[in-house]
Amino acid sequence: MTHSVAVFGAAGYTGALSARLLHRHPSFSLTSVTARSDVGRRLDDLYPHHRVPLELEELDLDRQAGVEAAVVAYPHGASAELVAALRQRDVRVVDLSADFRLRDAAVYEEWYRAHPEPELLEQAVYGLPERYRDQIRDADLVANPGCYPTAALLALAPLARAGLIDDLVIDAKSGVSGAGRAATDKTHFVTVDENLSPYGVPRHRHTPEIEQELAALGAPLRITFTPHLVPLDQGELVSCYVTGGVRTGDIELLYREMYDSEPFVELTATPPGVRDVRETNICRISVHRDERTGRVIVFSVIDNLWKGAASQAVQNLNLMFGLPEGEGIS
Amino acid sequence: MTHSVAVFGAAGYTGALSARLLHRHPSFSLTSVTARSDVGRRLDDLYPHHRVPLELEELDLDRQAGVEAAVVAYPHGASAELVAALRQRDVRVVDLSADFRLRDAAVYEEWYRAHPEPELLEQAVYGLPERYRDQIRDADLVANPGCYPTAALLALAPLARAGLIDDLVIDAKSGVSGAGRAATDKTHFVTVDENLSPYGVPRHRHTPEIEQELAALGAPLRITFTPHLVPLDQGELVSCYVTGGVRTGDIELLYREMYDSEPFVELTATPPGVRDVRETNICRISVHRDERTGRVIVFSVIDNLWKGAASQAVQNLNLMFGLPEGEGIS
Amino acid sequence: MTHSVAVFGAAGYTGALSARLLHRHPSFSLTSVTARSDVGRRLDDLYPHHRVPLELEELDLDRQAGVEAAVVAYPHGASAELVAALRQRDVRVVDLSADFRLRDAAVYEEWYRAHPEPELLEQAVYGLPERYRDQIRDADLVANPGCYPTAALLALAPLARAGLIDDLVIDAKSGVSGAGRAATDKTHFVTVDENLSPYGVPRHRHTPEIEQELAALGAPLRITFTPHLVPLDQGELVSCYVTGGVRTGDIELLYREMYDSEPFVELTATPPGVRDVRETNICRISVHRDERTGRVIVFSVIDNLWKGAASQAVQNLNLMFGLPEGEGIS
Amino acid sequence: MTHSVAVFGAAGYTGALSARLLHRHPSFSLTSVTARSDVGRRLDDLYPHHRVPLELEELDLDRQAGVEAAVVAYPHGASAELVAALRQRDVRVVDLSADFRLRDAAVYEEWYRAHPEPELLEQAVYGLPERYRDQIRDADLVANPGCYPTAALLALAPLARAGLIDDLVIDAKSGVSGAGRAATDKTHFVTVDENLSPYGVPRHRHTPEIEQELAALGAPLRITFTPHLVPLDQGELVSCYVTGGVRTGDIELLYREMYDSEPFVELTATPPGVRDVRETNICRISVHRDERTGRVIVFSVIDNLWKGAASQAVQNLNLMFGLPEGEGIS
Repeated sequence: MTHSVAVFGAAGYTGALSARLLHRHPSFSLTSVTARSDVGRRLDDLYPHHRVPLELEELDLDRQAGVEAAVVAYPHGASAELVAALRQRDVRVVDLSADFRLRDAAVYEEWYRAHPEPELLEQAVYGLPERYRDQIRDADLVANPGCYPTAALLALAPLARAGLIDDLVIDAKSGVSGAGRAATDKTHFVTVDENLSPYGVPRHRHTPEIEQELAALGAPLRITFTPHLVPLDQGELVSCYVTGGVRTGDIELLYREMYDSEPFVELTATPPGVRDVRETNICRISVHRDERTGRVIVFSVIDNLWKGAASQAVQNLNLMFGLPEGEGIS
Repeated sequence: MTHSVAVFGAAGYTGALSARLLHRHPSFSLTSVTARSDVGRRLDDLYPHHRVPLELEELDLDRQAGVEAAVVAYPHGASAELVAALRQRDVRVVDLSADFRLRDAAVYEEWYRAHPEPELLEQAVYGLPERYRDQIRDADLVANPGCYPTAALLALAPLARAGLIDDLVIDAKSGVSGAGRAATDKTHFVTVDENLSPYGVPRHRHTPEIEQELAALGAPLRITFTPHLVPLDQGELVSCYVTGGVRTGDIELLYREMYDSEPFVELTATPPGVRDVRETNICRISVHRDERTGRVIVFSVIDNLWKGAASQAVQNLNLMFGLPEGEGIS
Repeated sequence: MTHSVAVFGAAGYTGALSARLLHRHPSFSLTSVTARSDVGRRLDDLYPHHRVPLELEELDLDRQAGVEAAVVAYPHGASAELVAALRQRDVRVVDLSADFRLRDAAVYEEWYRAHPEPELLEQAVYGLPERYRDQIRDADLVANPGCYPTAALLALAPLARAGLIDDLVIDAKSGVSGAGRAATDKTHFVTVDENLSPYGVPRHRHTPEIEQELAALGAPLRITFTPHLVPLDQGELVSCYVTGGVRTGDIELLYREMYDSEPFVELTATPPGVRDVRETNICRISVHRDERTGRVIVFSVIDNLWKGAASQAVQNLNLMFGLPEGEGIS
Repeated sequence: MTHSVAVFGAAGYTGALSARLLHRHPSFSLTSVTARSDVGRRLDDLYPHHRVPLELEELDLDRQAGVEAAVVAYPHGASAELVAALRQRDVRVVDLSADFRLRDAAVYEEWYRAHPEPELLEQAVYGLPERYRDQIRDADLVANPGCYPTAALLALAPLARAGLIDDLVIDAKSGVSGAGRAATDKTHFVTVDENLSPYGVPRHRHTPEIEQELAALGAPLRITFTPHLVPLDQGELVSCYVTGGVRTGDIELLYREMYDSEPFVELTATPPGVRDVRETNICRISVHRDERTGRVIVFSVIDNLWKGAASQAVQNLNLMFGLPEGEGIS
């Protein structure tokens, strides 16, 4: 017995990868993939390496009768209405956009626009399984975390919970797939190749999401978060500079206690590289004391399309449907 | 005393590079740069590394009074009308498009469309200086060769002239800047990175241009020409497989005779790499006998934006204005 | 019940990947990994992304008692002795080197050196499953094909068997992992990046291997084969230019007949890219008629570390042990 | 009249580029290039794109009679003795190593080893022309700054001098040429490609050099400095997170005052990319206020081989010999 699932917005990178993972998933049955562009085109024509032999359809919720679960991979702002319609039909949703990540509609409005479905915000659970596993199991609407917040929060949670973050700078680096499939001057090969540059300075939209979850962990503070674009396709490295962390003697112990039983978090003594986690649901973390300055430096790497989006969505679906957490993504 | 020059279509890669080379040229004075997109934007904002402090203007020939020379960097098909208008005003033109490369309007029509200015074809000189240096000196309209034809013809001219080409396969590889600045699925970083694929199969438009010039050299034949896209920005490698070449004992001598006094052609014993000629006007060539099969293999590399377009255009302008051939591009 | 297997030479790229695939394989049990360098280091330290928690051991066949199968990933020339020793202990072997690919010891000597174990050549089966599936099932020693021959032979087999190859040029392009793990000037990032160059001109050692198998298919001829190094890590594209192929009306039919039931060969109408098959055991092929020249052009892509080496080795092991052919590699 | 100059250690990346720049320099005459490896090989064979037609010689100071100036491109630690020998012969030296950058031999010993020529430290001038132009003019021994210190100090000098740096995190990113020509696991294409990782954590040797010069500017503090390796060849981006900077209303004014007349420093409103300065002697800087956190963020990019090493060495030589500062590097 499998659960029927649909992916809405499957023409983009994260939607297409979600479709691939669910198409091969033993406990889900991918019944349809929709898109706003490329309707009528087969997904395995658009993304040959995903090998999903389904045709992209126009959105028509009436043809989705019986679907139990949905991954929504719409842009920020465009997602909320579709999510609301799906919830009305009792479909359980994992939303890849930012629309349900911020619990406070006023904060959402400050960084995005007026929230179109504020009453749904209460239902939504923030889909970081290492943090909210139990709530996700019971959730009908899961807000899949942003890629940077996923890497940053896993890197910082042990310090935040222990009250060891006085001040924080996050310098993040991402491959180009994080910018999405839109073909622009900024994603043109010739622009990116042999280049390296900051973007979203000084107010990137992932900032309030990280701050919200750090506060929930006991570390309410304003952070500096700066992402950079690097010439590679998939992969994300987050370098966290923490003032205050060295107060505790055995920092590594904090990390081992939190993560030793986590199936998708790896601790490593030497700084990780993004290649170590390419095409996996794994977050790999190293922690370092800088005795000269009294800072703790934490590095964390994920694949932005996997743990930063699609495979984490499947991890959440697995939890929601009572399946083994790593099914289809290990 | 400098000659005033304008670049039309300076928002694209080859036009912008032409502008950079002419802006720093001791004997030319770059008076204006026009574009169809990005009008009003400064060129050094669009291409910081070119450092050309001029604003892109809309095309208005009446404001170009007094301009002596022009580089036209319009797309194939869109160029001919502008070139005709410039010639009417007695401006000497180097055209980077394919519009005046094919001497026979019927061949142009077969591969492109009906030629809009067929009567101008007779005026045009094919701008490969190593082949038509004297004619270029007297020309008012020079058709700058395509990047693949430049590399291929320089690689093959000694064999063609000696009657040593019975059959020919050209397998060409180019960096992404060859596809131009248009942001599409095909030029998106994520599409190109870690990828490698043929395109324009089996009828790429540079085929008749190569055939025309081989015939002019004494080798009238139909060739197989297949380009491939490789994940780098600038650079082009052409691998030529020649049946018939080994009839002559000393092939290398043919090459030395033709190229020893050429300032922008280098002969090398080991196969060249595109890095050897990056950001130069140089074509680097190696010739190899395959005794097992009786074939001669010739490799040739250029920078597609330089010798394959902009710096060759300046080389042509230098000839047209009686300047040292390498001024501004050495 | 699983079969115990060892990988000899697991510190290199193809050996390490073989170890990863076998470590996760449901029907094999990876009992040891040996290496000549890096002894004592854990494989998941050397290759974190493979996640094989075994320590590299020095070669000591006495400690391999009970091992049923072996993958030998030694360099050409260094492999034969170890393979002979393993065969004496009745271990069934897949050899990744070239040492048992050429059936004729004299040809081997011409391209490599005097063969150290010529009497074993008869035992060896050429491990291209799409061609020798039945013989592989009964074999105790399988010579895993070279990466280029794998791609080229799958591309050409339908034409060769139909007698449609009069003359042949193969222009091949490979990512850098094909050059192996040895750190040299030629594999340094700065040498390869933004570069593109031919190598092994005009006598690359894969030439006689391709010629041997084409002859076995009915096409005895001397071929021109030229590989090129491109700036990507995994992936190989082979462009085949076939004189003679157009004699048959329906070439595509030849390909469909041979490959429609093959699980790891895909036919595509548009030219494939190496990304389409990255990290898979799949070979993707497109066939094109060039009516102007009477040539047939065939493109074929594989992942050189997978179908070109490690996953094809597992495919062969599956056949040898009567397992489903795609187990552990689909 | 030209000055004769030699490059010692010309087989590495920075030495070879120094040789290229000096070979084409109108006021210097490159008389010899020495190396410890590759002796007897022509430099234009080793680095075709530099086109320096000289043969690499073994070091033999007796054959350098009459040489007026030297660029020494030896590794850290190996340079001091050669520099001392050259100074004894009255040769004016620009040293690319770290051996004469730290004024305090005890600090050098802490981060490197016991200093072999401590008495020479007093002679040495720190070769950052934007900071020590006048002293460089009179110097006989110039310690060329490290690549990271060059980018970081130019980014921070206006704030440091104004007393606006209370605390500082520098997150730096560099292309692979910064790791030098040595072929190792870490510089292998397959290791670097599609990868991204920190290194030198938490004590990179450029730290004391940056701290020394910040202190000299009036900002004595301990800094956190973390470099990262990114998959590109040339280029370096330094992201500086400054606590304290927003105390001043018009930060941009500080930068304009210091840099408006500097020929090789560019200020830009939007964050720079390393491509903007590729193959130039230019440092490009942007400054941003983060009002939410009270931090100032400064980005600065250079080409690590040019302004970070070889072209800055020529800039220093120009000053030392009373030549126009930008001769041969503009």
